[in-house]
Amino acid sequence: MNITIVQVGKTRTNFIEAAEQEYSKRLQSDAKLHVKTLKSGKGEVAKMKEDEGQSIMEAIPENSFVIVLHEYGKLLTSPEFAELIEQKKNSGTSHLTFIIGGTYGLSESVLKRADFTLSFSKMTFTHEMIRPLLLEQLYRAFSIIKGKTYHY
Amino acid sequence: MNITIVQVGKTRTNFIEAAEQEYSKRLQSDAKLHVKTLKSGKGEVAKMKEDEGQSIMEAIPENSFVIVLHEYGKLLTSPEFAELIEQKKNSGTSHLTFIIGGTYGLSESVLKRADFTLSFSKMTFTHEMIRPLLLEQLYRAFSIIKGKTYHY
Repeated sequence: MNITIVQVGKTRTNFIEAAEQEYSKRLQSDAKLHVKTLKSGKGEVAKMKEDEGQSIMEAIPENSFVIVLHEYGKLLTSPEFAELIEQKKNSGTSHLTFIIGGTYGLSESVLKRADFTLSFSKMTFTHEMIRPLLLEQLYRAFSIIKGKTYHY
Repeated sequence: MNITIVQVGKTRTNFIEAAEQEYSKRLQSDAKLHVKTLKSGKGEVAKMKEDEGQSIMEAIPENSFVIVLHEYGKLLTSPEFAELIEQKKNSGTSHLTFIIGGTYGLSESVLKRADFTLSFSKMTFTHEMIRPLLLEQLYRAFSIIKGKTYHY
């Protein structure tokens, strides 16, 4: 399974970067991971979101199933998230793309492009914090799929 | 406001410990934070949970409002979480206690003791990862209460 993560803005927090590295490493045996970190937009918020949206659209690999992370998306349990991935895998989708917006969120065009809109929590987390959380849930999902016990 | 966090088991992951330190520091101006890290139980899972539960019960400060973090608890948005804290503050509660279980979860006695059971996500996060997430949400809640803008 190929997994592309498209995210906006470099991770600036050291401990989050360390977490991303650790969870990316764990994913290696289950997926080919491509992380595309785009530049943050500049100027007014509306323009920034629009510019970032355009870069995101260009960064989405062809023929991939696009999952956009958004606070108003669907809340799934970890087994349900694993099931979603397994279903895609079984139906011949070999590439999943996850999109994480920047500080000010995502443009309408990106939200419309989503094949699935996923929320990690009703709570607002920082856009950086979502990165290790996603990687950890992916690792957890592949562990669930393989039937391994993965605690804490 | 006094905030006690009762958690089971030392944080063993470096980047999570760094995150806890950072977010604890940010909380300093809004709350007096006490973190009580209890020893993990030993032996069989049932006995371990029972022993940990007993230690948790003993660690809960008197006259505090007890919020237990549990995956089947109530999902709140960040503003709703802030409102809960503000309500407690306004009704004269000067001490909140948050309880985070260990690897295998919490005993029945602790779940029964909860004045409120809170869930951060339908997804399962590691019991260590919940620690910085809670601290960050507390910081975010106090920022919301104070009417500050706190982005990403």
